[in-house]
Amino acid sequence: MQVNVAAALAEDVGYGDVSAALIDPKTIYQATVITRTDGVFCGAAWVNETLAQVDGSIRITWEVTDGDVLTPNQVLYRLEGSAQGMLTAERTMLNFVQLLSGTATRTATYVRLIEGTNAQLLDTRKTIPGLRIAQKYAVLCGGGSNHRLGLFDAYLLKENHIAAAGSIDAAVQRAKSTHPHMQVEVEVESLAELEQAIAASADVAMIDNFSLKETERAVALAQGKLKLEASGGIDANSITDIARQGVDYISIGDLTKTVTPLDLSMRFQD
Amino acid sequence: MQVNVAAALAEDVGYGDVSAALIDPKTIYQATVITRTDGVFCGAAWVNETLAQVDGSIRITWEVTDGDVLTPNQVLYRLEGSAQGMLTAERTMLNFVQLLSGTATRTATYVRLIEGTNAQLLDTRKTIPGLRIAQKYAVLCGGGSNHRLGLFDAYLLKENHIAAAGSIDAAVQRAKSTHPHMQVEVEVESLAELEQAIAASADVAMIDNFSLKETERAVALAQGKLKLEASGGIDANSITDIARQGVDYISIGDLTKTVTPLDLSMRFQD
Amino acid sequence: MQVNVAAALAEDVGYGDVSAALIDPKTIYQATVITRTDGVFCGAAWVNETLAQVDGSIRITWEVTDGDVLTPNQVLYRLEGSAQGMLTAERTMLNFVQLLSGTATRTATYVRLIEGTNAQLLDTRKTIPGLRIAQKYAVLCGGGSNHRLGLFDAYLLKENHIAAAGSIDAAVQRAKSTHPHMQVEVEVESLAELEQAIAASADVAMIDNFSLKETERAVALAQGKLKLEASGGIDANSITDIARQGVDYISIGDLTKTVTPLDLSMRFQD
Amino acid sequence: MQVNVAAALAEDVGYGDVSAALIDPKTIYQATVITRTDGVFCGAAWVNETLAQVDGSIRITWEVTDGDVLTPNQVLYRLEGSAQGMLTAERTMLNFVQLLSGTATRTATYVRLIEGTNAQLLDTRKTIPGLRIAQKYAVLCGGGSNHRLGLFDAYLLKENHIAAAGSIDAAVQRAKSTHPHMQVEVEVESLAELEQAIAASADVAMIDNFSLKETERAVALAQGKLKLEASGGIDANSITDIARQGVDYISIGDLTKTVTPLDLSMRFQD
Amino acid sequence: MQVNVAAALAEDVGYGDVSAALIDPKTIYQATVITRTDGVFCGAAWVNETLAQVDGSIRITWEVTDGDVLTPNQVLYRLEGSAQGMLTAERTMLNFVQLLSGTATRTATYVRLIEGTNAQLLDTRKTIPGLRIAQKYAVLCGGGSNHRLGLFDAYLLKENHIAAAGSIDAAVQRAKSTHPHMQVEVEVESLAELEQAIAASADVAMIDNFSLKETERAVALAQGKLKLEASGGIDANSITDIARQGVDYISIGDLTKTVTPLDLSMRFQD
Amino acid sequence: MQVNVAAALAEDVGYGDVSAALIDPKTIYQATVITRTDGVFCGAAWVNETLAQVDGSIRITWEVTDGDVLTPNQVLYRLEGSAQGMLTAERTMLNFVQLLSGTATRTATYVRLIEGTNAQLLDTRKTIPGLRIAQKYAVLCGGGSNHRLGLFDAYLLKENHIAAAGSIDAAVQRAKSTHPHMQVEVEVESLAELEQAIAASADVAMIDNFSLKETERAVALAQGKLKLEASGGIDANSITDIARQGVDYISIGDLTKTVTPLDLSMRFQD
Repeated sequence: MQVNVAAALAEDVGYGDVSAALIDPKTIYQATVITRTDGVFCGAAWVNETLAQVDGSIRITWEVTDGDVLTPNQVLYRLEGSAQGMLTAERTMLNFVQLLSGTATRTATYVRLIEGTNAQLLDTRKTIPGLRIAQKYAVLCGGGSNHRLGLFDAYLLKENHIAAAGSIDAAVQRAKSTHPHMQVEVEVESLAELEQAIAASADVAMIDNFSLKETERAVALAQGKLKLEASGGIDANSITDIARQGVDYISIGDLTKTVTPLDLSMRFQD
Repeated sequence: MQVNVAAALAEDVGYGDVSAALIDPKTIYQATVITRTDGVFCGAAWVNETLAQVDGSIRITWEVTDGDVLTPNQVLYRLEGSAQGMLTAERTMLNFVQLLSGTATRTATYVRLIEGTNAQLLDTRKTIPGLRIAQKYAVLCGGGSNHRLGLFDAYLLKENHIAAAGSIDAAVQRAKSTHPHMQVEVEVESLAELEQAIAASADVAMIDNFSLKETERAVALAQGKLKLEASGGIDANSITDIARQGVDYISIGDLTKTVTPLDLSMRFQD
Repeated sequence: MQVNVAAALAEDVGYGDVSAALIDPKTIYQATVITRTDGVFCGAAWVNETLAQVDGSIRITWEVTDGDVLTPNQVLYRLEGSAQGMLTAERTMLNFVQLLSGTATRTATYVRLIEGTNAQLLDTRKTIPGLRIAQKYAVLCGGGSNHRLGLFDAYLLKENHIAAAGSIDAAVQRAKSTHPHMQVEVEVESLAELEQAIAASADVAMIDNFSLKETERAVALAQGKLKLEASGGIDANSITDIARQGVDYISIGDLTKTVTPLDLSMRFQD
Repeated sequence: MQVNVAAALAEDVGYGDVSAALIDPKTIYQATVITRTDGVFCGAAWVNETLAQVDGSIRITWEVTDGDVLTPNQVLYRLEGSAQGMLTAERTMLNFVQLLSGTATRTATYVRLIEGTNAQLLDTRKTIPGLRIAQKYAVLCGGGSNHRLGLFDAYLLKENHIAAAGSIDAAVQRAKSTHPHMQVEVEVESLAELEQAIAASADVAMIDNFSLKETERAVALAQGKLKLEASGGIDANSITDIARQGVDYISIGDLTKTVTPLDLSMRFQD
Repeated sequence: MQVNVAAALAEDVGYGDVSAALIDPKTIYQATVITRTDGVFCGAAWVNETLAQVDGSIRITWEVTDGDVLTPNQVLYRLEGSAQGMLTAERTMLNFVQLLSGTATRTATYVRLIEGTNAQLLDTRKTIPGLRIAQKYAVLCGGGSNHRLGLFDAYLLKENHIAAAGSIDAAVQRAKSTHPHMQVEVEVESLAELEQAIAASADVAMIDNFSLKETERAVALAQGKLKLEASGGIDANSITDIARQGVDYISIGDLTKTVTPLDLSMRFQD
Repeated sequence: MQVNVAAALAEDVGYGDVSAALIDPKTIYQATVITRTDGVFCGAAWVNETLAQVDGSIRITWEVTDGDVLTPNQVLYRLEGSAQGMLTAERTMLNFVQLLSGTATRTATYVRLIEGTNAQLLDTRKTIPGLRIAQKYAVLCGGGSNHRLGLFDAYLLKENHIAAAGSIDAAVQRAKSTHPHMQVEVEVESLAELEQAIAASADVAMIDNFSLKETERAVALAQGKLKLEASGGIDANSITDIARQGVDYISIGDLTKTVTPLDLSMRFQD
């Protein structure tokens, strides 16, 4: 988080805010940041860090917490301190909040569509480069869950890995013998492959682009034997029906690769 | 770019791609990356750098250049080399291309709406933290132009700076005497303020949330005296009319703060 | 990994290896790296990256894979290429291998002591600063499992958090309502507290410094309701007995905070 | 130091301490950090920096200084301030202290074994990647001395460099003519080679794996002509005898490559 | 700026200032920094950042602003706070000020020589590695203007690019079709080439090593059609005459590649 | 070095060299880099690293080695490979060479002035921020020697440290008891203080702004008891006389704070 904030300030502030330099360094402002629309809030730590890096003496009073559901015109936080510091920090802190709250809000929209089912909503590795851990946190704030962090902390055996090993069974065995306690997920394209994944004692099967019918059968096969993750081309129209088939997880790249920023405004009282 | 790529690989690959490790290191793949939709391409350098950092021996053949207009199912580039390396690099390089092409495509959509007018489309500082310079390049590839890089390379005097100086004229004079050759832009809220900006010899006036009528008058006042930048709440519905009033620039935060990723696919032939 | 390697090379090589500079740049060496003792190997990716950063043209032939059990005088890998590059890279690549193999070996020693039980061996956050993800990977290579990465990806509610919330139940509820799908672990000091953790539906209870007797009772209470992690002052003498009580996890700080390097040697044939 | 601390916090804290977030930000704690065992303290600056990066308002009162000899249960430092900040910083600051005090303590153990002789204890380049300068400082705190920082600030001419130059004399002359004022050390395998190093006017000879007898003769030969560094397979059993032969330096890789952490505890009073 | 300051402190302070450690941490000093010579000041933000990173509690009172013309023995700023912190920060903050004020002063010397002409003084890409943006700011403070930041934000088509495209016209057209709104500058070696650049509608022509006579003719040709930048071998003796020919810009590598530091002194009152 | 090169490329190349992008990627160039003036060469490793980071396939043939004395128009190195890569790398690699060779050349000029005396020329901590280790290497290449790297690796006790300890003797004793084997240097303002430094068994005394007469007496006093470093206001006019008094070291800030770049040229043959 410190590194992300430092990088963002470096690109925005560079050698200094030439406009803010015209203001008397002793001028004190009060300001409030509000949301113009509804959504789910995320990003308090990034705001705190941005202010700490720009000017540690600006006081911040939080009116919301990460994960809070927002209504239009709600105050998110209040600031008091150096006018120069606030103006210099403004854009960077808002850029973080609008991005992360946007991701949390998008997540919450999907979560609502699967309420009452057993399915958990998962993110993917389709994230904004450099901001994965931040976006994964925003997904949590929106009520979703996190899939693996990256290529290093869980197996996801796809067509290429299976072909290289010779069979689903061989691939799963190699994975388990290499890292016995790491989760092994297998991507399957058919019910026949799902059966192989079950036989191989995989932990999770990703059923990719299965129809509703196939999903229903997959759930019946998998029952109590492995977890099922539905994936591929699922959107707001189809997610509820898929969840109702009884899958354990639904993963949606759209959560983190598409960004609709929260609409924010910062108002000054000097 | 190197730093962005290194950060993206660090968060995705960590201590290694455990799944790809199951594949024989000597296995050679060929692969093609295609777009599933139309759009404008951007990101070749990020792809090259990702491959260089993961495995310098993978050969890449480019079928497109940054800025190219794409049609669905068009091949973007071809790869040949280590299967392990390709699988490890896949997600990171696609994440860059889908983001940057998404920004270029969004830009091109707005550019088309002001074709035939004198207005140039400008980006803003509402960017994804850490990726400003990359996104600004994507805006260029989409046919737009770049506003200032950050707080350091041009003046944009807003309400707070003007209040601190006492008047538009005082603020502009201070700016010019500090950095004589730096561009000075003033945000104005009314035609009266625009006249003050002209009298103060500002280089550009940002007319914020002006109606079409006010914009027309602003153009008449500014003619040959300073450049006019229309800003604030402009969208695809309103941009053409505003451009037709004769403003020099139109700036749109949406270009870089909203992300609709280009839909990509990587296909392997082993 | 790239960042760790770059930092290690920066501190060792600085502006250049003045001794290696005395050797003709065209001199070619062959070399083998062997282990002098038994152990478990870990660190191939760090060796590859060190060589890539120092001199991309040195060829490496691997005789072992991460996780392999080693016998004294076994060849780990062979190198062929620039003498200058090999000498410059030597110490840095060996430092990584001796550290990471040391951690894998220590892990394997503990894993052997709990073979045949249901207990999984877990690492902790007591790691060498800057090398946590590398050491966690070494733990995997030694047959252990990873606890949370850090303070951000799972709850571990200790005395202080519980006191702040008022009760175990209140703390767990707050955690679950903040991040519904994140694992919640509670540290308990007594069977009474364990019952509260069970009642609060925590996912895992850490039983801290429990006697064998108390551990046995804890297992009976927890059966099927939550997972039990034994922790605190467990060493090679006590781990087997504790594992036999039926706990799910045993965490050992010693895995990563104590370092006994693997004893390596690099031999040149020019 | 800042970079090491930032990296350690990044990997431990990530996007935030989810457990500490359950505590009221206004809660104030007092805490003391004690050592459970004896040893030599090292690491105050890393503790200060960790606290400064996490929460600059936590006050720290030091009861020890780097290099102090510790007795079990001695208070190292006291903290007062934000409970959240202390809990978030706890593990990172303790990880630094346990590592660096461990290195200082190990050094002091060896130093005691050569007290009363003329030999100085030296560290080597066998360090934990990324922490060399920190460990070298810990060696100083334990009463040892520092060998060269890396490959760049002194010559150490080994078998390969000598072979490339043709002879010890040729290698030393090349080194001296390249960097006239840089220290030139030559590794010798026999008394005959030592005589060549003396004849070549090397500054230091490293006598590698010499027997006590050979060491005695080497000292007689070297007297007043060059400094002698004993190295290779020296441990707590053999170091005293070697030092008594009159060598100037003894270098021990074990000082920095083996880590036995100081056993610490942090106790809270809220 | 934060990154430059952190790097400078890392190399100077390392694991700590061993000499300052001898001073009681509670000792308070006052100090003033003065210039011994005349010049133009630049670097306040770097001083502020250095102090913030070393010890945030040291108070600073500025007596000058970036861009101020200095007279010998003038007070630049006053400090009050921890003696340890001031001594540790001293050299790093002075190194920044002496470098940046040196660049600003050198720039001001050239600016004075072209006063009364229409020529703007431009910097080049011949900068100190890692400090380009800082030095470009210093050029502004000295009254100069900034050429492009790097290879990415403007075209400068030289002999090689023109040869590759086939002609000046072809090169300019390719540049314009790739990035329609990016400035296109062409380096020309003769009046004939200048005419081609004008015909191709380049924005700027760099006339490289033109004699005064040729420069005069170039100005006549370019009048109102494109901007002219004189470059190559221009020094304090020739700059005035060239400026008087009516060129728009004169670029001087010497501004940023040669460094004559401002002579500073820091005086303590304890 | 890798970090310095990466930073320099980041600021120069950004998201890519738009001009070089106009050239066919398959175009191959040959080029030579020559010096236009005499001097001492330094910087081969930075050139190699710049090329490796830009395009690893460009071949480089070195005609000089660091430390070589250069004559005007001498070829430094030859390149063969991708035209794009060479053009992109050109400015960055030349910026390093001109800076470092400039420092080496300046050093050599001073070294020549003290030839035949016993004095060694030392650098200081007055270096270009971020490039200290590079410049210290350039000083070596010019025939000078390196003073301490920074505040951490040797004591330099000045007025403030002495006042804090109460006396020169007290300050030296504190330093020695803290780090027994670290070099202790004391800055003295008079012969009386020099006697105190000798009595305290300091290793080196810095005689600051001593007249030739005082220097002569200082040498007589110090003979065989401690080393003497002359410092303060020494320039090319005075250095020879001071060296002849018999001091051990002369330190000159000018070596590294003033930069007169070597004049280079890169010529292409396509």
